Amino acid sequence: MTVITHAFSVRVYYEDTDHGGIVYYANYLKFMERARTEFLRDAGIELDELESVSGIVFAVTEAHVHYLNPARFNDVLIVDSTLIEVRGARMTFQQQIRREAENIVESEIRLACMDREGRPRRIPAELRRKIQPELTPAAAVREPA
Amino acid sequence: MTVITHAFSVRVYYEDTDHGGIVYYANYLKFMERARTEFLRDAGIELDELESVSGIVFAVTEAHVHYLNPARFNDVLIVDSTLIEVRGARMTFQQQIRREAENIVESEIRLACMDREGRPRRIPAELRRKIQPELTPAAAVREPA
Amino acid sequence: MTVITHAFSVRVYYEDTDHGGIVYYANYLKFMERARTEFLRDAGIELDELESVSGIVFAVTEAHVHYLNPARFNDVLIVDSTLIEVRGARMTFQQQIRREAENIVESEIRLACMDREGRPRRIPAELRRKIQPELTPAAAVREPA
Amino acid sequence: MTVITHAFSVRVYYEDTDHGGIVYYANYLKFMERARTEFLRDAGIELDELESVSGIVFAVTEAHVHYLNPARFNDVLIVDSTLIEVRGARMTFQQQIRREAENIVESEIRLACMDREGRPRRIPAELRRKIQPELTPAAAVREPA
Repeated sequence: MTVITHAFSVRVYYEDTDHGGIVYYANYLKFMERARTEFLRDAGIELDELESVSGIVFAVTEAHVHYLNPARFNDVLIVDSTLIEVRGARMTFQQQIRREAENIVESEIRLACMDREGRPRRIPAELRRKIQPELTPAAAVREPA
Repeated sequence: MTVITHAFSVRVYYEDTDHGGIVYYANYLKFMERARTEFLRDAGIELDELESVSGIVFAVTEAHVHYLNPARFNDVLIVDSTLIEVRGARMTFQQQIRREAENIVESEIRLACMDREGRPRRIPAELRRKIQPELTPAAAVREPA
Repeated sequence: MTVITHAFSVRVYYEDTDHGGIVYYANYLKFMERARTEFLRDAGIELDELESVSGIVFAVTEAHVHYLNPARFNDVLIVDSTLIEVRGARMTFQQQIRREAENIVESEIRLACMDREGRPRRIPAELRRKIQPELTPAAAVREPA
Repeated sequence: MTVITHAFSVRVYYEDTDHGGIVYYANYLKFMERARTEFLRDAGIELDELESVSGIVFAVTEAHVHYLNPARFNDVLIVDSTLIEVRGARMTFQQQIRREAENIVESEIRLACMDREGRPRRIPAELRRKIQPELTPAAAVREPA
């Protein structure tokens, strides 16, 4: 089975670091959210249109993050994103942040499709059609390399 | 003339610092915005009610900031806020951030009263009545100590 | 068994929200980190002294976060922190963010004790003595209410 | 006289916006700092090397910011940076953030060259040689278009 991975590059600036000289732990979640936004954009989905046209937003419901190595000011990081589940109102990503081949952060992020009032909404058929080709079944991702 | 100063205390956490070991320059603007929010709250103005009830928001139109000394992790800072102008759609604050007697940052922040679409709106009479007693004329503030 | 919970209050300001009108998902991790810092301070541990005197820092190695309900601008939130494990170089917290009785976020955060170069270091005996009385065994926390 | 402008592109993500639906005012200072870092990189200056090799850092001493129009989620912004002064320990930038031709923010940012202890240090000759060709005298910038 093919694993479909979307790579997004992030430069670490002063704003991202803390006084320990490394990237502040919450800021990796910003990098991951930027990468998910670009993943969806590349699949033809613009989140602002989705909201204004279909009244739909995605909210993170779970984040599981493993911090393996620190990143530092001026590093160029790659966020690898793999969509492993699209079901009902739910979408799940595995995201890995690396500096070249060195793993920095590994995560699994679950999102829920909602209307503007926060009620769960089945992912609309058209949106599903756009992201289906980007989906890698979780089984494939978790197989040993 | 009396200078009316509102003091608001801020603790510096990891999130506020950068890899230089000091508070990141943009983050002082967060401290100043928290202090302005509390200044208005103490004058009986809740910004969320103002928006939902009167359809009014305040947006910063100018920020002039002088960085005098660095603040560090774990510091307790005081943000001193003085309202020096309320006129038409405009409100101006002088804000100073200090660690005990040592000045860290000095600023002048100008805000505009707007409707939700960003059109300038005269500050409503009721709101003006609430903040008028908190006003210190700029002349008074700028007098030598 | 007694569950020892440290309560820390956080006001939601503009800086914490995003264009969805709710607190941005990464920013809850800032609230949790502020609360852990105050938990340790109340146990007599100042993180800046720990670093300058003992050359020791704590880094988050795992964060598991469940987002249950959104928080909004001007909300007053309580971060409840319970220390459920202190072992070797490791320390684990359960942290819950609530608005009065309504749960907003639930999390488990694992930290590692390190020297300045990022090498794992056994939590020093003196530090262990200070936090031991604040420890609630995980078994106690997870028991049904 | 020629005005030398360095253009740097920034995408607005969720993290940058606030509950007013627009970019939070402090976050533009992050965009400006990213752009200054890239301006210097393109002139052959890496800030991390500058610090580790020469023990030199740049700290913002003054920021004057005019907020003209709001930017929103998903906008692509351009930060135009012009270096208008290099003198002694001081460096001054004019920076403008725009969405295509529409001005969003205009600013003047002054920085001081310092050693790690925060003492002012004359900008080293080698660094000066690298940025001199990127300098546009203030007089040129301020001339009417």
